[in-house]
Amino acid sequence: MRSVINYNSWNKDFKAPFGALKINEKMKIVVKENGNYQINNITLVIFREDIEIQRLNLKKEDLFTVEFDGFEEVGVYFYHFEVDIVIDGYEQRLFYGKNNNNAEAVEYSYDWINKYQITVYEDFKTPSWYKEGILYHIFVDRFNNGNRTGRVSNPKSNSFIYANWKDEPMYIKDQDGSISRWDFYGGNLKGIIHKLPYIKKLGVSIIYLSPIFESSSNHKYDTGDYKTIDPMFGDEEILKELIDKAAQKGISIMLDGVFSHTGADSKYFNKYGRYDTVGAYQSQESKYSNWYTFKNHPENYKCWWDIKALPNTNELEPSFMDYIIYDEDSVIKKWTGMGVKGWRLDVADELPSKFIKEMKKELREVDEDAILVGEVWEDASNKVSYGERRSYFLGKELDAAMGYPFRDNIVRFLKGEISSNDLNNAYMVIKENYPKESFKSNLNLIGTHDVNRIKTELNKDKSLVKLAVATQMTFEGVPYVYYGDEAGLEGKTDPDNRRAYPWKNEDEDMIDFYRNLTTIRNKNKSLVSGDTIFIDTNNNDVFGYIRFDEENRSESILVLLNRSENLESLSLNIEGYSLEEIEYKTITKKYVERIFKESNVFNVDIEDKSCLIFTLLKN
Amino acid sequence: MRSVINYNSWNKDFKAPFGALKINEKMKIVVKENGNYQINNITLVIFREDIEIQRLNLKKEDLFTVEFDGFEEVGVYFYHFEVDIVIDGYEQRLFYGKNNNNAEAVEYSYDWINKYQITVYEDFKTPSWYKEGILYHIFVDRFNNGNRTGRVSNPKSNSFIYANWKDEPMYIKDQDGSISRWDFYGGNLKGIIHKLPYIKKLGVSIIYLSPIFESSSNHKYDTGDYKTIDPMFGDEEILKELIDKAAQKGISIMLDGVFSHTGADSKYFNKYGRYDTVGAYQSQESKYSNWYTFKNHPENYKCWWDIKALPNTNELEPSFMDYIIYDEDSVIKKWTGMGVKGWRLDVADELPSKFIKEMKKELREVDEDAILVGEVWEDASNKVSYGERRSYFLGKELDAAMGYPFRDNIVRFLKGEISSNDLNNAYMVIKENYPKESFKSNLNLIGTHDVNRIKTELNKDKSLVKLAVATQMTFEGVPYVYYGDEAGLEGKTDPDNRRAYPWKNEDEDMIDFYRNLTTIRNKNKSLVSGDTIFIDTNNNDVFGYIRFDEENRSESILVLLNRSENLESLSLNIEGYSLEEIEYKTITKKYVERIFKESNVFNVDIEDKSCLIFTLLKN
Repeated sequence: MRSVINYNSWNKDFKAPFGALKINEKMKIVVKENGNYQINNITLVIFREDIEIQRLNLKKEDLFTVEFDGFEEVGVYFYHFEVDIVIDGYEQRLFYGKNNNNAEAVEYSYDWINKYQITVYEDFKTPSWYKEGILYHIFVDRFNNGNRTGRVSNPKSNSFIYANWKDEPMYIKDQDGSISRWDFYGGNLKGIIHKLPYIKKLGVSIIYLSPIFESSSNHKYDTGDYKTIDPMFGDEEILKELIDKAAQKGISIMLDGVFSHTGADSKYFNKYGRYDTVGAYQSQESKYSNWYTFKNHPENYKCWWDIKALPNTNELEPSFMDYIIYDEDSVIKKWTGMGVKGWRLDVADELPSKFIKEMKKELREVDEDAILVGEVWEDASNKVSYGERRSYFLGKELDAAMGYPFRDNIVRFLKGEISSNDLNNAYMVIKENYPKESFKSNLNLIGTHDVNRIKTELNKDKSLVKLAVATQMTFEGVPYVYYGDEAGLEGKTDPDNRRAYPWKNEDEDMIDFYRNLTTIRNKNKSLVSGDTIFIDTNNNDVFGYIRFDEENRSESILVLLNRSENLESLSLNIEGYSLEEIEYKTITKKYVERIFKESNVFNVDIEDKSCLIFTLLKN
Repeated sequence: MRSVINYNSWNKDFKAPFGALKINEKMKIVVKENGNYQINNITLVIFREDIEIQRLNLKKEDLFTVEFDGFEEVGVYFYHFEVDIVIDGYEQRLFYGKNNNNAEAVEYSYDWINKYQITVYEDFKTPSWYKEGILYHIFVDRFNNGNRTGRVSNPKSNSFIYANWKDEPMYIKDQDGSISRWDFYGGNLKGIIHKLPYIKKLGVSIIYLSPIFESSSNHKYDTGDYKTIDPMFGDEEILKELIDKAAQKGISIMLDGVFSHTGADSKYFNKYGRYDTVGAYQSQESKYSNWYTFKNHPENYKCWWDIKALPNTNELEPSFMDYIIYDEDSVIKKWTGMGVKGWRLDVADELPSKFIKEMKKELREVDEDAILVGEVWEDASNKVSYGERRSYFLGKELDAAMGYPFRDNIVRFLKGEISSNDLNNAYMVIKENYPKESFKSNLNLIGTHDVNRIKTELNKDKSLVKLAVATQMTFEGVPYVYYGDEAGLEGKTDPDNRRAYPWKNEDEDMIDFYRNLTTIRNKNKSLVSGDTIFIDTNNNDVFGYIRFDEENRSESILVLLNRSENLESLSLNIEGYSLEEIEYKTITKKYVERIFKESNVFNVDIEDKSCLIFTLLKN
């Protein structure tokens, strides 16, 4: 039987306002009959997790309608519809939930209904320096060595230095597969200072550094001392210089905070006795003992993904929270006080909400403009981890999450795995579930140190890489550039995605492309802070959207991306823009054969694997 | 039945001259009856390999005697005795061969007789600069980096540099156990030039360099180009500078010649296409094709110890011999012409005799003072390898061999595994089998890049290390010092025995000990070039010998080494020296409680784990 009702949560005619709700924000739900059925009643059933908390009858007028006063508590809520209908003289109850691929209502059997989600949050604002910025992610050891002689500063004992800057990265492992020695290229903070003009010219306004605190590895996710800069990277003075010189260029510095675990080789755990503290591994009398969980002291302890080098911390242990968050010289306060503008929380989905909230609170007390983002690989609005629904976006937690879904979606589209319509839907799911501020702050990445380089992911197809870049640079959220991607670096997964930046061997054409795109973004308010309407291109290979400034709609941006190997001719009926109102000028193009208006449609030809960016002007 | 005859090939009363014979050199053999047996006849039976070539009846006078005109051809000969004796009225034939542990005649059954050996050689002289020298073996990558900045010259692509000079060496291996990247410390020829004063002060007169020709590894036994210095080590100009500056200090340079195989990564084989030649791996039309043996081109080729990185060469292939030996600019001629004074042939027991002989001949034509030594791990006079008796010491081959037996024997003695008498015997076997010049030229090593460091081998017992050093420095043959042993370096087998020289962290006491001992050696002609008499100390723990100058016996040297943990009191009846002729002065001692002459014996107390070196003076 075809659907007896029409409902689409992405359409404001059905649900208003769109998307997540603030606490006590009113909501209107409208359901339409689809054809001539005898519908007696429609009930909106609301859940908090698995618990039904409210049933609301929709008033039948022209349409079925209910106005809801809103939710009193933050959280992730779900709903479905129950439709009482008479069929062949018998009353039946039908269950309607969300279509998996879009937001239309479809019928489910009683046992399992794919519900609609409503995220309810306490209103918050993400600092505009952040959400209007462009971020550059630097894996410090691999970016640039700032020592004039090229020597590596303070090398670790029993470690290896790559003989050449352009050597290929590798792990040096034991027979049993664990790291036997660490490998370094010798990048450091001074090297970043030297390259600030380059970074500035890329259009970047935020530098996010992979962890810089003392530790034995090259990636430094195995912290040895949270309060010391790793001597291979520099010292506090150099960090301060970096912060100051970057600030002079309008660039903010963000750090990587790794709190779910420390290194086994740390002043806290001190497994190898390299620190002059009494570590938790060394003695149960250690003042750090409660930071860790021992099943059997000292050899059997809880660790991250069972990697013995990374003992897990008990984040809520008071002495740990004091050290990281509350103390006057806590880790967060020390570095934020020095001018660090933000933190990226490593494995945020393994941190208790309370830990994140407390950190956010204290952070904002040190600097009301400081931001906290988190590593989450999935839709961060409803992530369940270790059996618990995680809350990141309810107002007191993260400002944003790493945008791995952004990358997954655009990559799948560019590789031809999903259609432009599927891509629209995939992005709409995120846009609907995230609070507005979180979506505007989303880190729209196409590469990080944990995934294939975008060029490799896209089989070295530079045109497709450019489409991915054009997307992130014109999308709602913060463009996130992984060092070297702009220079044409390739690389499979770790460690290959951590090759050294190819100084003097850059893909200059690609760098120019990045510069061009960041310039376009930074110049256009619609792109920097506008809202988004995804448009139906009627072409599986062409993805399109309009970015518009909510306060000033006189100038909007239309982005079209053609992934196919052919020129595509489009006839666009752009929702919300009557044809008369459209004027256009191209901002970026491969080339455009034909653009014209004809009766009610906007006709455009778009070359193979190319992107068109128009300004849409109202008369 | 106890032995019916007395014979001992080490005693000149029985066999004269002692040891190996020159071609056509006369020999007298004397056998004594041991008791009152009715011996009718004694026959000396001589073999060349398994073939009986001569039977000589010993004339019965006072003793059984035969004078033999000598051998007309070089080679390794063997002999035993057949004794016809009447026992209980019946004539029987008894077979006498060599006691395994010493040189006394003992009875064997007919089926297997341990024969005496006589090496017969064409007379030759080993240049005195060599046989009177002291050799220092440098593993180039690990000795000293002569670049002022500490940078490593011309690092190989995709290789690793140890982050610190004092890091511990390791191999970087694939899961399947083969080397995945090469590891370097960055030692080079300039570094050796800088340290010539240090080397000179050690008393050294020969520097033997591990391979220095271009290759991908750190050890360079996988030659890539025989005619180019590896650019990490330097270039021809720097080698020339090293040769010249060393010569100014009276130090000669010896190279390592690796001809039984090349690298797969070479201009000859060119497996990875890194050279701009057409290599044998690349094409069967390569001009180097005949250098190698392919079972199936290109993947299945003969290689050294089945290591695919080391394809074996066909040494007797004319184009190979031309390239290495005969051409006007052959490998041997090029470097010898530049001033290289000698070559150490890697894996000499895998090289055909003809190859060695031809090399020796051409070498001597370039420089009549140049020398050729070989890597042989066992008694090099009778080594059988690949089913063939190898000839190294018959006059036209090697000047000397690596003295691994020297090391094995002294180590076993110092570790208490054999008695001082066993040690005497072990050394006497070598002394008897080797031509005089070869024994005087024997490389008396206690460490190389292929065995445990002597300090590690002796369980870090410095006193025992000093005894080993004292032995090599007072022994007949060329003392061979493996870089760093003198500075107290430790290390198990490869790669641990290739640690970097511990500059600024040397064991100065040990260096002083070496200097003291080399000074003693260099000052005393008896030690530098004298003959040796091993003495019976009547004490399992004390090894002793006298070194004397054959032309001037007025001043001889007595060496006593006590391995035990106790003071040992000796009463020595030194053969060949009547007591009246002995005066003594100690050269080196721990300390001596008591030394006196009493009737016919020389009494001496020797402290635990110590060495005494006396000068014995004739009146």
